[in-house]
Amino acid sequence: MPSIDIHADVVDLTRQLVDIESVSRHERAIAGAVEQALSALEHLSVTRHGNTVVARTELGRDHRVVLAGHLDTVPVNGNLPSRLEDGILHGLGSCDMKGGDAVILRLAATLTEPVHDVTFVLYDAEEIDAALNGLNLLGQSGPDLLEADFAVLMEPSNGVVEAGCQGTLRVEVRTRGERAHAARSWRGVNAIHAAAEVLTRLNAYEPRRPVIDGLEYREGLNAVGISGGVAGNVVPDECVVTVNHRFAPDRSEAEAEAFVRELFDGFDVTVVDSAPGALPGLDRPAAAAFIEAVGGVVNPKFGWTDVARFSLLGIPAVNYGPGDPLFAHKQDEHVEVAQIVRCEEQLRAWLTGAVGAGGDAR
Amino acid sequence: MPSIDIHADVVDLTRQLVDIESVSRHERAIAGAVEQALSALEHLSVTRHGNTVVARTELGRDHRVVLAGHLDTVPVNGNLPSRLEDGILHGLGSCDMKGGDAVILRLAATLTEPVHDVTFVLYDAEEIDAALNGLNLLGQSGPDLLEADFAVLMEPSNGVVEAGCQGTLRVEVRTRGERAHAARSWRGVNAIHAAAEVLTRLNAYEPRRPVIDGLEYREGLNAVGISGGVAGNVVPDECVVTVNHRFAPDRSEAEAEAFVRELFDGFDVTVVDSAPGALPGLDRPAAAAFIEAVGGVVNPKFGWTDVARFSLLGIPAVNYGPGDPLFAHKQDEHVEVAQIVRCEEQLRAWLTGAVGAGGDAR
Repeated sequence: MPSIDIHADVVDLTRQLVDIESVSRHERAIAGAVEQALSALEHLSVTRHGNTVVARTELGRDHRVVLAGHLDTVPVNGNLPSRLEDGILHGLGSCDMKGGDAVILRLAATLTEPVHDVTFVLYDAEEIDAALNGLNLLGQSGPDLLEADFAVLMEPSNGVVEAGCQGTLRVEVRTRGERAHAARSWRGVNAIHAAAEVLTRLNAYEPRRPVIDGLEYREGLNAVGISGGVAGNVVPDECVVTVNHRFAPDRSEAEAEAFVRELFDGFDVTVVDSAPGALPGLDRPAAAAFIEAVGGVVNPKFGWTDVARFSLLGIPAVNYGPGDPLFAHKQDEHVEVAQIVRCEEQLRAWLTGAVGAGGDAR
Repeated sequence: MPSIDIHADVVDLTRQLVDIESVSRHERAIAGAVEQALSALEHLSVTRHGNTVVARTELGRDHRVVLAGHLDTVPVNGNLPSRLEDGILHGLGSCDMKGGDAVILRLAATLTEPVHDVTFVLYDAEEIDAALNGLNLLGQSGPDLLEADFAVLMEPSNGVVEAGCQGTLRVEVRTRGERAHAARSWRGVNAIHAAAEVLTRLNAYEPRRPVIDGLEYREGLNAVGISGGVAGNVVPDECVVTVNHRFAPDRSEAEAEAFVRELFDGFDVTVVDSAPGALPGLDRPAAAAFIEAVGGVVNPKFGWTDVARFSLLGIPAVNYGPGDPLFAHKQDEHVEVAQIVRCEEQLRAWLTGAVGAGGDAR
C-alpha cells in the first residue's frame, strides 16, 4: 500500500496525492494512505467509512467547522504521474481536487489548537453517481460525524469563496398529437408544431435575481433537450422538451416545481430530477470570520455542488479551493502551486484566529 | 423452383403468389415462376432484368400502356401461408400487392388482342431503398422497354383510381447557439429556444390546394422530427427541425425547394431528400378511356408512389388496384377477393374496348 508524508510541504503533498492513482471506485489505496497518516496524529480522532476518512479535533470549542474534499478523480487520460514546471503542477487530480486535499491534510497535521473544532473529511466517489458519493453516504449513515456550524468544500474555485448554491430541477414538458401519413397531414395533429408554445414561453421567461446575504443569484430556465418524430413521412404524435430550471436558494424544490408547472400550465409536465439549493449562510459567526480571513471577496455559486449536501444537514457551506475550475476534467489539468500555498495560509489564519476575531467575537 | 398456374382464376392465382415467399431481396423464386409462366405465352415477348420481368405484346397498335406491380413484400410476420375465409384472402402480400400482380398475370395470359399494346411489368425491391427498386433500375438501364402513353400501377387503392402524385421534399432547418453550463445560461445562446420561430412559421403555414385535371390536390408542410441537446446541464448549441413538404404536381422540385427556403428565410436549410410529383395526365386518350372503364371516379394521389417514376419517363400514370391500403404492411394483411375480380373485369373491359371507345376514338 502506498503511503504519504503528511509532514511534507503542501505542494509536495499535493504531488504525492496526485501520484496515487484514485479514479472513482478505486480509492482504496489513497484512502488507506490518508487514514494511516491521520491516525498517527495524536490530536485527532480518526474513523473510516468505506473509502471515506473523517478526522476530528475534540477540543470542546463553541463552534465546529468542516473542511472537506473528495479523493477520487475522473479517468486517467495520459496525465499521470505529476509534473512540476515553472510553478505549475500538472497531472490528473492536481486541480480537481488534490491541491485542496493537501491543504486539508496539512492543516490536520499542524493545527493542534484551532480556534474552532475542526472535522476533516476526505471522501470518495464524488465524480460519479450520487448514490455512491462518500459524503452523501456519510450524511445518511453517520450525520453526527458531520455536525458543524459551517463547512468549507475545497473544490477548485481559484481561491475565491463561492457561497451557497442554486438548486436544479429537470422536467419533461410533453405535447401530444395524432399520427398520420405526412402526405395526408390534415388527418393528424402535429405534436412538434404544438411545442412552439412551449419554446415561446421559454423565450418569454424573465429570470429572478434575488439577493441573499448580499449575494445576487441568477436563476435560469432552459430547454436542454428536445426530441420528437416517428419517421420521415409521419406526422408525429409526441414531442418532449426537457427543461432545466436553476433556482436560487431562497426557493425550495417544491416552490421551484410549482413555478415550472404554472409556467407550463396546459402541458404535461413530469419531474425527472431535482436537487435543492443551499443558502450561503454568511450570517453565521464562523462563516463571517472565514470570509474576512480569505480576503472578503465572495461570489454566489450558480451551479450545484456538494455544498448542498451540507445544507440538507443544516450546515451552511461554501466552495473555496485552489485551482481554476475550467481545467477540471481536462487532459491538461494543472494548478498554480501559489494558489495551493495561499489557500493553506488563509485557512490557517482563520483557524488560528490570526485574522478576524474568531467566531464568537463577531 | 416453385411454379404458378397462370391459367387458374385470379383469386387462386393470388393465393399461389402469396404462398411463394418474396420478401424484398428474396424475389428470385417468384420472379422465376412469373418468367416461366409468361414465357410459355406465344403472344408475348418476355425479358428478364435481375428479378424484374417484362412481357410485351407487339401488335403495332397506335398506343401502348403499361400495367405494373411489384413482387416483393415487407418481412414475414407470422402471416403465411395464405388463408381464404368468407371472401377474404388473408396473408402477407395479399393486399400489397399480389392481388394486383395476379390481375396483371391473368390479363397477360388471356388478352391476345388488346386494343392497345400492353407492357406487363413485375418488378422487385419496391419496399426498400429506391436504389434497389426494380422499376427504377429498369427506367435507367432500359427505358425503351417502358415506353408507353399511359401506365397503371396496381398498388392497392380499393379499386378506385388515384391519379398523379404529390412530390415530397425533406429539409433540415437548423438553428445554432452557443454552449454554456445551464447554471450560467446567460453566457450561452440556446439553440432550442431559437427553434420557436421555426415552429411558429410551421403553425402559420397555409396549404395550397391547386386543381389539376379536375383533381384537387392538397399540399402540406410538417415537422417530422426535431432534435437538440448536449446534456442535462448544458445550454445546447444546435437544434435541427426536419420538415417534410408535400407539393402538388404543378410545382417542380426546384419550385418546392425555393418555397421552403423562402418560408424559412434567415435559417440554415439543407435539403436531405427530394422526389418530384407526377401530373395526373388525364387528358391523354388512353387515360380517358381507362377512367371511363373503371367507373369514372378519380381521386388525387396525395402520397408519393412509383407512378412518379413513370412521370419522369414522360408517361402519365395512375394508381389503381385491389386492396385497402390501410392494411398494407400490417400483420393482418388481407384483401376482399371481390375487389380483385372487379379490377380484372374493369381492366379487361378497357383493354378489349368493351367500355369506352378506345384510345384513338376519344
